Amino acid sequence: MAKVIITAIILSMKRTLTTEINKEIGKEVTLSGWIHKLRKLGGISFVVLRDRAGLAQAVIDGSKENDKLKDLTTETVVRITGKVVKEERAPHGAELHDCKIEIISPVKEDIPIAINKKEMSVNLDTLIDNRPITLRNPKQRAIFRVQSEITNEFREFLEGRGFIEVNTPKTVSSGLETGGAEMFKVDYFKKKAYLAQSPQMYKQIMVGVFEKVYETAYVYRAEKHSTSRHLNEYVSLDLEMGFIENYEEIMDLEEEFLKSLTERLKKNSVENFEMLGAEIPQIKGKIPRIKLSEAQKILEKEYGEKCLGEPDLEPKHEKQICEYAQKNLGSEFIFITHYPSKKRPFYTMSDLKEPKETLSFDLLFRGVEVTTGGQRIHIYEDYLKKMKDRGMNPEDFEDYLSIFKYGMPPHGGIGIGLERLTMKFLNLDNIREASLFPRDINRLRP
Amino acid sequence: MAKVIITAIILSMKRTLTTEINKEIGKEVTLSGWIHKLRKLGGISFVVLRDRAGLAQAVIDGSKENDKLKDLTTETVVRITGKVVKEERAPHGAELHDCKIEIISPVKEDIPIAINKKEMSVNLDTLIDNRPITLRNPKQRAIFRVQSEITNEFREFLEGRGFIEVNTPKTVSSGLETGGAEMFKVDYFKKKAYLAQSPQMYKQIMVGVFEKVYETAYVYRAEKHSTSRHLNEYVSLDLEMGFIENYEEIMDLEEEFLKSLTERLKKNSVENFEMLGAEIPQIKGKIPRIKLSEAQKILEKEYGEKCLGEPDLEPKHEKQICEYAQKNLGSEFIFITHYPSKKRPFYTMSDLKEPKETLSFDLLFRGVEVTTGGQRIHIYEDYLKKMKDRGMNPEDFEDYLSIFKYGMPPHGGIGIGLERLTMKFLNLDNIREASLFPRDINRLRP
Repeated sequence: MAKVIITAIILSMKRTLTTEINKEIGKEVTLSGWIHKLRKLGGISFVVLRDRAGLAQAVIDGSKENDKLKDLTTETVVRITGKVVKEERAPHGAELHDCKIEIISPVKEDIPIAINKKEMSVNLDTLIDNRPITLRNPKQRAIFRVQSEITNEFREFLEGRGFIEVNTPKTVSSGLETGGAEMFKVDYFKKKAYLAQSPQMYKQIMVGVFEKVYETAYVYRAEKHSTSRHLNEYVSLDLEMGFIENYEEIMDLEEEFLKSLTERLKKNSVENFEMLGAEIPQIKGKIPRIKLSEAQKILEKEYGEKCLGEPDLEPKHEKQICEYAQKNLGSEFIFITHYPSKKRPFYTMSDLKEPKETLSFDLLFRGVEVTTGGQRIHIYEDYLKKMKDRGMNPEDFEDYLSIFKYGMPPHGGIGIGLERLTMKFLNLDNIREASLFPRDINRLRP
Repeated sequence: MAKVIITAIILSMKRTLTTEINKEIGKEVTLSGWIHKLRKLGGISFVVLRDRAGLAQAVIDGSKENDKLKDLTTETVVRITGKVVKEERAPHGAELHDCKIEIISPVKEDIPIAINKKEMSVNLDTLIDNRPITLRNPKQRAIFRVQSEITNEFREFLEGRGFIEVNTPKTVSSGLETGGAEMFKVDYFKKKAYLAQSPQMYKQIMVGVFEKVYETAYVYRAEKHSTSRHLNEYVSLDLEMGFIENYEEIMDLEEEFLKSLTERLKKNSVENFEMLGAEIPQIKGKIPRIKLSEAQKILEKEYGEKCLGEPDLEPKHEKQICEYAQKNLGSEFIFITHYPSKKRPFYTMSDLKEPKETLSFDLLFRGVEVTTGGQRIHIYEDYLKKMKDRGMNPEDFEDYLSIFKYGMPPHGGIGIGLERLTMKFLNLDNIREASLFPRDINRLRP
């Protein structure tokens, strides 16, 4: 008997999500969430309830129920049980009538920022300073739903191709890229340590173990610039793969990933893109691949930019090349390849045909670099020679070099900046909008 | 015509994995990988090839092919094309005959540690010091395949239940748990910063946004002890969920996760467990849940341990209680609940019926705590009171407290130590074996 009663209570409490009420027309349902909007008109309260899924409207009638809302304001956490009625003007085409309301957590003080407006009228600093509450805004949430789709697709796509996830350390004794420059120092039991600026060494080691590996983890750059596209702590979607025939295979894989990602977003995220006024990019056929030197010729010819021979593209040039690619090559993405050896880290493989150029690439998207990648040297003696040429001491890289001494296949990989990719997918103005709790030169909180 | 030829080359190069050769009996296949074992007998070489999937044997006959192996030793990276022949004694019941071998990366120097033995005869320090090569040993690889299954199951299980992944910062200005004690200091542009010891504050903030969130990321503990079960940098599988009815729901969820995980391991990982001589735990029915005080009574009665009233279990007690649970309750897992308030962080919710006890729990498994969890306070005023009682200053926690000011549902969550769970699943002696590149008080490399 007791069991029957308990089951009955549980059933009556079963929670429906706001987005599901239109499947329950005529039935009684229970919603839980935050009071997103509250309008009191005479003896009636109109509540827009927000839960993790979306919004739904409820009409609170009668003094008994309305008394519970006395002195309370938005963001109060409530449970509302009511009958679902068709209502074209309400979200999801339905609303709740004859409601009983239960206060879970009362809020008496108005939230300092109106998060229930479509456009929150706050500047970037206010938005970020008040993250714990501004993230509750539906548009803000949409950004991170898309970000989660990107990460999940990265993992699932690679798992489906025989890659395995690795966890590589972020507290390190030195860096491959800059040897300590632009790295954050950590006091590690009185020893000198740094925060890793990339998993490069470790993911190459792991190619010797599992051939194809990936990692989705924070990396740290102690760069002092404050721009709209740099964070000092960001999530890097990293992969590294062995037994490649050539460096084009790495770009092929990223292209396939991006196609698979856009398909996923079309399936799962249309609503989020709509909310943010952004368009899911189309990738038709191959993403164009041009050499840096070709790109520089285009920049001179089309934009009058005299940059031929420069080791890299300036931000302005990246914008121009993307504009060019979209207009003339019908692509929002473009691979720029063959960066000069002197601009790339020592482990980058040179092009045998043109040794001053490397088998490396950047992927540009909507005006910004979103990926760096390339093929790595895999022969021990080649490392020794390259290090000697650069005045580096192989003894400083003993752990790393040991893997090449004992057999490594041709390999290469990429690193994708998650927040930057999210920003460009959603046409956000600033990368900080694509990080839940961004860290920059001035910001360590919230 | 050119297209036909290119296709033919690609087809002939198509790579087969070692574990798949038994499906290709009588056919010619190409394997790629490392020479795991090499035995030269007269004019014949017996090669055991290792690739990411496993091992396969190839017989290299004839002086032309054997000459290529002259001066070379194990770990040489090769491509071998040959005909698959049934051979009961070989791995996967088949081996390659009439082989052509191509040297991809030659190795002339013997690897200092014999990684091709079933049991590498090295001590823990040597194992870890030489990680870049010892990880190539098949038993070592098996550990991290299991680890990857655990993480993937955690994510997939939670995604299936409406959770969303969050990325919370690891560079923070203070800590919730100890307020800076036992945290690593970071020099953050001359500002005082720390490495996060848990995502606690952020995951609670995110309950206010998405209700149910998870994160799989490194956390940092600057504890000076050097034990077989602590790492200073470890992956925490964290989740936090809102709108719970009671704290038991959190344990219910973990129980379901663990059941789902053991099912997955039975499907995907039997071979890895066999290789490591470990057994996948069985979870029949509910995992027992007992109060700390009950556990202490059992310890006194069964083991003569006088610990009633102690705020926590000692490592010895954890072992004893697990032994007891296995013998008497038929479970390798046991939840210990109701730790005293003074032993738990300020955000832990007290039991209304017994205010000195909290709605918190640890999960013990095979003698060790693998999870800490509990229900959190969700009412603003309750935080203020608790902080006052503990002599804490609410102003130091302004960001955090703002979420409770503006409505939070009842919520709670858990943190699972990934390496520790891996260690106990596989009966490893030391947690360092369950970390690719472990960090401890003495170790910052490789």
